[in-house]
Formats: sequence, C-alpha cells, structure tokens
Amino acid sequence: MSDSPSTPAGLLSSITEPGDLKRLTAEQLILLAAEIRDFLVAKVSRTGGHLGPNLGVVEMTLAMHRVFDSPRDKILFDTGHQAYVHKIVTGRQDGFDLLRQRGGLTGYPSQAESEHDLIENSHASTALSYADGLAKAFTLRGEDRHVVAVVGDGALTGGMCWEALNNIAATRNRLVIVVNDNGRSYAPTIGGLADHLSTLRLNPGYEKVLDLVKDALGQTPVVGKPVFEVLHAVKKGIKDAISPQPMFEDLGLKYIGPVDGHDQQAMESALRRAKGFNAPVIVHAVTRKGYGYRPAEQDEADCLHGPGSAFDVETGKLLAAPTLKWTKVFSEELVRIADERPDIVGITAAMAEPTGIAALAKKYPERTYDVGIAEQHAATSAAGLAMGGLHPVVAVYATFLNRAFDQVLLDVAMHRLPVTFVLDRAGITGPDGPSHYGMWDMSVFGVVPGLRIAAPRDAATLREELREAVAVDDGPTIVRFPTGSVAPDTPALRRVGQVDVLREGDREDILLVAVGSFVGLALDTAERLTEQGYGVTVVDPRWVRPVPIELTGLAAQHRAVVTLEDGVRTGGVGDAVASALRDAGVATPLRDFGVPAGFHPHGSRAEILTALGLTAQDIARDVTEWASSLEASIPVT
Amino acid sequence: MSDSPSTPAGLLSSITEPGDLKRLTAEQLILLAAEIRDFLVAKVSRTGGHLGPNLGVVEMTLAMHRVFDSPRDKILFDTGHQAYVHKIVTGRQDGFDLLRQRGGLTGYPSQAESEHDLIENSHASTALSYADGLAKAFTLRGEDRHVVAVVGDGALTGGMCWEALNNIAATRNRLVIVVNDNGRSYAPTIGGLADHLSTLRLNPGYEKVLDLVKDALGQTPVVGKPVFEVLHAVKKGIKDAISPQPMFEDLGLKYIGPVDGHDQQAMESALRRAKGFNAPVIVHAVTRKGYGYRPAEQDEADCLHGPGSAFDVETGKLLAAPTLKWTKVFSEELVRIADERPDIVGITAAMAEPTGIAALAKKYPERTYDVGIAEQHAATSAAGLAMGGLHPVVAVYATFLNRAFDQVLLDVAMHRLPVTFVLDRAGITGPDGPSHYGMWDMSVFGVVPGLRIAAPRDAATLREELREAVAVDDGPTIVRFPTGSVAPDTPALRRVGQVDVLREGDREDILLVAVGSFVGLALDTAERLTEQGYGVTVVDPRWVRPVPIELTGLAAQHRAVVTLEDGVRTGGVGDAVASALRDAGVATPLRDFGVPAGFHPHGSRAEILTALGLTAQDIARDVTEWASSLEASIPVT
Repeated sequence: MSDSPSTPAGLLSSITEPGDLKRLTAEQLILLAAEIRDFLVAKVSRTGGHLGPNLGVVEMTLAMHRVFDSPRDKILFDTGHQAYVHKIVTGRQDGFDLLRQRGGLTGYPSQAESEHDLIENSHASTALSYADGLAKAFTLRGEDRHVVAVVGDGALTGGMCWEALNNIAATRNRLVIVVNDNGRSYAPTIGGLADHLSTLRLNPGYEKVLDLVKDALGQTPVVGKPVFEVLHAVKKGIKDAISPQPMFEDLGLKYIGPVDGHDQQAMESALRRAKGFNAPVIVHAVTRKGYGYRPAEQDEADCLHGPGSAFDVETGKLLAAPTLKWTKVFSEELVRIADERPDIVGITAAMAEPTGIAALAKKYPERTYDVGIAEQHAATSAAGLAMGGLHPVVAVYATFLNRAFDQVLLDVAMHRLPVTFVLDRAGITGPDGPSHYGMWDMSVFGVVPGLRIAAPRDAATLREELREAVAVDDGPTIVRFPTGSVAPDTPALRRVGQVDVLREGDREDILLVAVGSFVGLALDTAERLTEQGYGVTVVDPRWVRPVPIELTGLAAQHRAVVTLEDGVRTGGVGDAVASALRDAGVATPLRDFGVPAGFHPHGSRAEILTALGLTAQDIARDVTEWASSLEASIPVT
Repeated sequence: MSDSPSTPAGLLSSITEPGDLKRLTAEQLILLAAEIRDFLVAKVSRTGGHLGPNLGVVEMTLAMHRVFDSPRDKILFDTGHQAYVHKIVTGRQDGFDLLRQRGGLTGYPSQAESEHDLIENSHASTALSYADGLAKAFTLRGEDRHVVAVVGDGALTGGMCWEALNNIAATRNRLVIVVNDNGRSYAPTIGGLADHLSTLRLNPGYEKVLDLVKDALGQTPVVGKPVFEVLHAVKKGIKDAISPQPMFEDLGLKYIGPVDGHDQQAMESALRRAKGFNAPVIVHAVTRKGYGYRPAEQDEADCLHGPGSAFDVETGKLLAAPTLKWTKVFSEELVRIADERPDIVGITAAMAEPTGIAALAKKYPERTYDVGIAEQHAATSAAGLAMGGLHPVVAVYATFLNRAFDQVLLDVAMHRLPVTFVLDRAGITGPDGPSHYGMWDMSVFGVVPGLRIAAPRDAATLREELREAVAVDDGPTIVRFPTGSVAPDTPALRRVGQVDVLREGDREDILLVAVGSFVGLALDTAERLTEQGYGVTVVDPRWVRPVPIELTGLAAQHRAVVTLEDGVRTGGVGDAVASALRDAGVATPLRDFGVPAGFHPHGSRAEILTALGLTAQDIARDVTEWASSLEASIPVT
C-alpha cells in the first residue's frame, strides 16, 4: 500500500464517467485498480464507511462498466454498500471527502446523486427481484437493454433470492446476475450450502481456492454450463468443479464461471459472453473481501467490513477512543443470563459481532444459531425453539425486523410464545441513511397483540429490562435501543407501578413522557420549560407497549401531556398514549414529538435530530407555544 | 362415490385417536381411506371448507400417524388447511358438523382443540422454519422425538422454505420433511422449477405421471439419494428420475422418493425409513389434489380447493345463488383500465382466480405475472416493473401483504414508485380464523411515507378509487375491500374536497367518519343516534391515508367525532384522525371504533362483528353514553 493520496491523481483523475474506462488498456486497468484501492483506503480511513466489500469489487466494477452501457443498461447493487467503486467511476470522486456525512455523498446508490444509480435500499437479497421486474418491463416495452444485478453469496441465504431466481428462470429476458462470492455475509456465510466453502476458506486459507480455480480451469470461464453447477462445485471443494451438477438445467438459466473476480480481463470476458446470451445468465465471480489492503485481509471478524469512523491506515484500528456501547451492555448481560438459565438460546441473522450475540456464541456455541441473512427464518425458527421449551433471544438491527413482521405477528405472537427480540440501532441511526433507520418498530410492532416493547434509557435499565423480557413466558417482547455509546445512568427518583419518575415538577403542569434514549433530551427540555415557569414532571414508562396503566393516572393529574420518542410519530408511542387516554376518559390534552414520517437523509444522529427539530430548544419552544394556546391555558408562575 | 353418510360408520367410527390406526390391516386402511373421503365430501358439502387439499392427503396422513407417535412426535402442517384428515383421526369427527362455524371446529390446527395440533398459522412456507426450531430444541434438551413437517410443492416457491432448508441442512436433527407434490399452490405452481411438471400435468394429463412413477421405480422408494434429486427429476419429466442430480449432496439432507402419495403402504414404508435416519430427510410424495372425488378432480381451476359454502355433492357446484362479489367488480374494472392503458400490468402471488387477476391474465397474458407464493418478490419485482415505466397492480389478500412490509416500505415507497396494491379480504373475513383476518393493513401500511390508502364503500367507489389509484404516479397506493358480496351503492349527497358526505345531520353534533365497508353500519348507527336526539353527519373519507385535510375542517365544525373502521384500532384510522386533529389544533373530542387488538376466533363475518360489539346497536349505545359524559356535553333536543 503506497502512501494514500488525498486527491485523485494519475489515471483516476481522468475517469469522470464510465465511457472513460473503455479507452484504457489492460495494463492501465491494473494500475487504475491499484489507484482506486489507494483512494478507497485514504478516503474511508477518514470518514468511516464500508471498506472491505468495496476493496473486493474493484475489478468486477470496472469490468461491468466496460462491458455494459450505464445508464442505458441498468447496474443494480444488492445491499448497495459495495457501490463505492461504481461511484468513483461515475463522476463522484470529489464527494468522498464528505462520504456518509450530512449533505455529502451517501454510502449507498442514490438517484439524486447520479443517473447511474437506481436501488437505494440497503437491505440484502432484494436486487434480483428488482432486476426481474426491470427486465420484464424492458422486454414488454420492446427496449433492447440489459439489466445487471450484483449479489453476494451471503445474500443468497435470504429467501427473496430464491423467489426471484424461480421467477427469473421462467423468463428469457436480458438479465445478468453477478454472484460476488466472497464466502461472507457480514460474517462468514452460513448454512448447508456454505459449510464446505467456509471450511475451505478458514483452513488452510483462502489463497488456495483462487489458485485451485486457476489451476483447474486455466482461467477460462466455462460458458453455458447449467446454473450453479460450478458455483456449487466451488462450495463443496474445487475438485468437483468440472463434474456436472445440473441442478437448474431445466430452468433456462445459463451459468458462466467460476471467474477470478480480481482478474479484470477474465471478468470482462465472462461478462461479454453473458451479455451475448440475451437471456438470464449467472456470472460467478470468486472474490476476497478486503482484497489488496492487508489490515482488511487480516481482519478475521469482518475484513474491515464497515469501520464506523476514521481509522489508522497502517493498522486498521479505529482512532476514536473506545466507549461503552449499547451493544456491549446487552452482549455481556445476555451471557450472564445464559449462565443462570440453560433455556436461553441466541439467534442472529448473519450479524453475530455487530449485534453482540458473538459473546454468547463464544461461550455457548451449541446454544447460538446464525441463520444467515434470513430474518423470517430467524423469527419462525425462534417460534419453534420456544414451542420446544426454550427461550430464544433474537438479536437484530431494528430496521431488519421489519422483514419478519408477519412471522412475529402470527408465528410468534398468535401462539403466545416467549421470544425476546433485541433491536439494536433503533431510531435514527445516522450515516447509513433512510433504509437503515430503525424508526418503524414501535409503530409496526405496536399493533401486535400481546407483544410488549421496552425502551431502556441507559445501561442499568437495559440490563434490567432485558431480564424482565426473558422472564415473560406468555408472549414475545422487544427490547430496543439506539446505536452508539450509552448515556450515563439516570436513576429514578421513584417508581409508580412500572413507570420511573425521573424528575418531579413543583406543580402538576406538564407530564413529559420520555421514551428510552430520549430521556436526556426530555430532561433538558424540562429544564427549559421550568425556566419558562412551568412545573414539569419527567417519566420513563420503561415498557411502552402496552401503555402502562399508571401513565393514564399520571396524565389525569397534569394539565398537559407531552410525549417524546425516537421513532416515527405515525402510530407511535404518542398515538398509543393518546388512545389510552381517550379510552380511559382522561381529557388532558397531549402533544407528541417524534420522527416525522418520511425517508430522511443520512448524517450524524445529532445532525439529523437537529434537522428534524428534535432538540430541547425546539421542543421547549413548541411546547411553550402550544401550552399557551390551550383552551384552559396553563398559568405560568 | 357412495351416498355420503352423515355420521361416522364402519371403520371410521372406531378411530378415536392415532393409536387406533396402528391396529388396522392394509386392507382395512384402504377401506378407511374411502370412508374418510366419503366423510369429507359429506361434511364439507354442507359447511364449505378446504376440500381438495384434504382429499389429496388421506393416505399420507394415515401413514404419518401410524409411523410416528403424535403428540410425542410433532406433526406440523404447512398452511394448515390440509389438516382435516389429521383432525378426523385425532378424535374430532363430531366437530365437522360445525366446521369453520363460530364455536365449532376450526379449519386449521388449533392447540385449544387438541394436543396433536401445534401450528395455528395458515400462511404458507413457514412450517419448515418452525420444524427447524423445534428439532433444535429437542436436540438441545436431549429429547428423542421426531418432527415431521408436511409442505406443498407450491409452498416451496416461498423464500422462507429456502431459508429453512439452508439451515436444516446444516443440522443432524430428527426432522422429516414430507413434500406433498401435487403440482399446485392454490393455482398450479409456477416458476422455473415447476414449468416442466405443469406442462406434464396439464397435457396429456396427470394420470401419466403416477403411472410413470410406478413404472420407472416399481413403487420402491429410493433411499438415501441426494436431496431433491428425484424430486427435481419428476419436475422435469419422469424419464430422468433415476439419473443423478446431486444438487444438495453436500448438505447432509437425505432424500426418499418419489412415492405415490395415494399408496398408503408405500408412504408408510418411506416414512419408516425416514424415521430410521435420525437426521433431516425429505420424503417426496406425489399426490393429486381432490383425489377420489370426481367433481374435484375435474375442476381445472382449483380442484375444489376451498368451496366457501355448501355445495351439491354430485356436481361440486355451490348451492348459494351467485351475487356480485367485490373481487369481480375489481377484476372487471381492471381489465377495462388495462384496455385503455398499455402500461398497466398485473401481479398475483399464486392466486389469480381468487384475487380476480385471472381476467386480466386471460385477456393480456403477457402483461400478467404469477410469481408463486412469494409476496416479497411480488412487491419488489413490482418496484422493478415501475422503474421500467410500467404501472403494476399487485392483487393479494390483505393478510398476505404483511409478508412484504419491508419491501413495500423501502423498495416501493422509498423510491416513490407507482405501484397499486389491491387488498382483497380486508378486515374481518370469517371462517378461516385469525391468521386470515386482513385487519392489520391500515395500521401497518399507514406508517409508510407517501403511501395512500383507499377504502371503497361499494362497487361504484371501488371502480372510482381504483382509477384514482392507478393515476397516482409518485408513490404506491393501496385499495382495500372486504370479502363477499358488495353492498348496494350509497351515492354521496355532496363531496367536500375528497370526502363524500353521505348523510347530513340537522345539527352539527356528531361527525361520523365511516371507513369503506363500514358505511352501512355507520348509516344505521346514525339513524339510532338521531332517534336519541343527536344531529349526525356521516362522511366517507374515501382515502384514509393520509387523512384528508377536509376532515379536520369538518371535525372542527362538530361537537364530537366518531370513527368506524374494519381494521385493528391500534394505529388505525381513528388514531390517525385523532393525530391529525391534534396537529391542527382541533380540540373536538373523538371516539374510535374498530377491531380490538387480538387474535379473534373464526365464525361468520356477521357473528364476529357482533361478538366484537361492532353493531349499530352497540355503537350507538356507546356513543350516547360517551357523548353524555363529555365535559362540554352535547345537548339533546
């Protein structure tokens, strides 16, 4: 790795659109790939971002843009975080200084940024379904365009890919599926299909696979073989790569591969053949996450998948001082609970490290299940585990549980099964943008009968509410908390039923109901309102679904109720408290603050909350205006 | 078919629990199977119910209960509507006179009915995930039990099955997967995997398949072959059944089959071998939906899948006089719109007939896509079609769109794509019980930014609102309507913005906001309230999300607002109107009526609404009490 240039130089500076790539020689493309890797490391080491995946797709991306004509042809990235190289060659090099920062370049494709971008969703396993629809549309409209979809082998563990392949196989559309097979999701890919490949890669090392591919096939792509034939062969050990395995031979899907995904010429050759079929075809590229940057290659946990902030280029270590993260608090408490209760088991959907399940897996491997990128199966297999007498803890990012709504509703809740869902990255997360925001859970899962939702405010209440959750034996629970560092503990003054009173007003003017991580914001707001002469009581309901009965009593004692939540307002805790007050005949007026319905842009969590008016200053001003407008207005001392 | 006995006789009357089956001879089992078919036809012809699927699993069910020890071993039915035979042999023959009626036998497995039942969810493709969890639990707890999961070939088009197989294959648990391969979902199974089988079955007739199986394999189950080898072989034409296709050979899953599913002895032999493996194994049974009852066998549309009410035993025709159904109004209007607009395309998830998409498919086959039981792919491929310049209409039962929440949110709405989702069977449906109720849509999809929801009240507004929906070009829409016969048209007196005024009060006391099919209930309620001396205006907002701005103005002019919706109250239209009023500073008190959160039992729609207090009498009484209790109470003339 050379010293990292901070501005594009050499070949890279001459690439402003995909057409520029088509003029380069094979030697120049090799140089360009090296420049791009330098560029990626230099930029991402300052901003944080998805480094490992992008280092793995440099040559593949160059090849796609040389063979196809974007934006006339459509290049779709599944999961989208591996589109940095695509951004670099489509005129966005300058944007990388502000990558993932408010107003700067997004970490995912963005239609607003470029006509070369289409899918903005970051959730895995979806791209083949978009591709099927898009290719059908082009065919129906008689448009002679190609659709190219890039999907990881990890994403193939998600059921949507299977649904899409079953449909794509029945068509004759111009659709090229590039399988980026690096043996990993976030973590190594799991399941029967991947077992053999995982074994190969971990021991005696991945280098041998690439060498074996080259030895066995002489780097010549095998064209026209039945789909997945050799793909599957690689997964079971390269020795069988040239024996026939015609699983999909009836489907009309052609297969080309395996191709060394870091051999730009081989990739290009394979893609040109694929393009020529004018029918669905899979190009199977074997790549290496983090390729070409030693700290990423040597990072066994996740190949520097996505350092959240600036890191040291030499070591790959984050520069920021470590702080106590929400995830770690959960992770450690879960292990302590598992020590005490043998019925506790853990489930992760391919994200053991980032959700904290890894600690449980390390101590109790036989009690921890990684189901792949398969949230539906995570939920329903948890239902099965619970039917079998265990108490599963399913740890997942809040945004991803949306993929299993029906399973949580019917498979878990309708059967009144004790399953604890732990939602990390709940609420506004930040740099990953709208499809990563975990802002929907309290509304969507709030409708599920019998499901209880806890929103801890600090480390102490996370530990406490997690223990309360796993003690529930007649239905599911959710424990949800935000991303990042946990705030200092805020002890309660007293507890009313299950509601914590954090601050007492000197008069019963305003009851401020603060949800989870917004407790700090609520206390700041209360200070400002007190300065305006109001008496303000701040409570944390701890469990927000169902609405604690004590809240209606407290509301009845106050002149106004204000709710504050890190979730979408529509159908949120505010609406639920308002409904509870109506049903109880409590006429105290209510005002609810939360995230407005919308797909909000990326930025830091603080920046976004400020932009949405979720600051103590803004809320105190709004509450003051509102309180003064109330019919029975609150007298200010 | 003999004359149908109305009470169990002969062998059947002696079967009160699975153990009774184990004493029968092979000849007696053949007689018993015939008695069970007579029983099924006799009973279901009076009550309606899932006839075709159950006629197809008679011998399979007998074999499972002879080989395994339920309830110690767990028999799981995917989709559950093929559990009638299981109910018959587990002591519930007497219940069939009240099948699917309030207080009577459910149409699905029910833990409350029997210790032999476990999964109550009727959604397809979930059973293998439960089975994986349950088998893991038994293994972890050291319990020597078997899990048997029955899944149709149609359900295998759903992605959850793929997720589950990938996980199951990585285990060594005692799990037997019985694939009930009848070549159909509700409609014939679609997609690349099923194309060849469909061709075979449709022409020259399915008989040949069974004969070919027998000829080729001499009815001897092939034990230990790689998974799906012969399963897939059958799908591509029986000639390849004995050639190796080792797709899953690494997975550790064993395969037994294909077995003639109507040969009880062959099924039993295959299951005994499967049980002996003590590891995951697939038993592939080839069956025929509707087997043994000519009107079902001859019904090409759906093999008498599920007649909704009593039918003539000789002909299979429903006895009830045909009425105009909501589905038909949609179906015909969609074709008219498609005549005018070549960009309109239709999508169904394996339910072309029951959703009415079949009419479009008949006239414009190239513009209609059946994606299999794959709601996620339905939504995201619709996003792709819309990106390609088309306007997809996705027709699906309301309860099933829950399976694609994340896809509607991110893949469709976040990209502001014009896709119209048409939700049939919305609200309380009736005899199919809690997992078929389409009561969640207005709450769950109500949180999706930019998504508009229409709830037509009659045929005229369904046609009108469908046309408004497909005219939207900047985001998704939902048009939702209930099951059954459409009510007579209720013309509006006038339209305020987009709100229809259906009844004017003589004073501005109560504004009654009625959603869709509840308009009739609202008008009846209004009559009763008028008799009590209140002035009542009834409006239909037509589009309930977002809440029409005109509603807040109307609410401000009245002394009280009452909302009435055929959906769960939590986060529903009532909550949304209340929120809109708060935001607009309108203090008019509101009371919302809708379906209480819960998993409500089966029955007729009218019975359930009565049980939930959703009658004009109950609502008028509650509103009267409430209105009289209001602080600024409404003076009665």
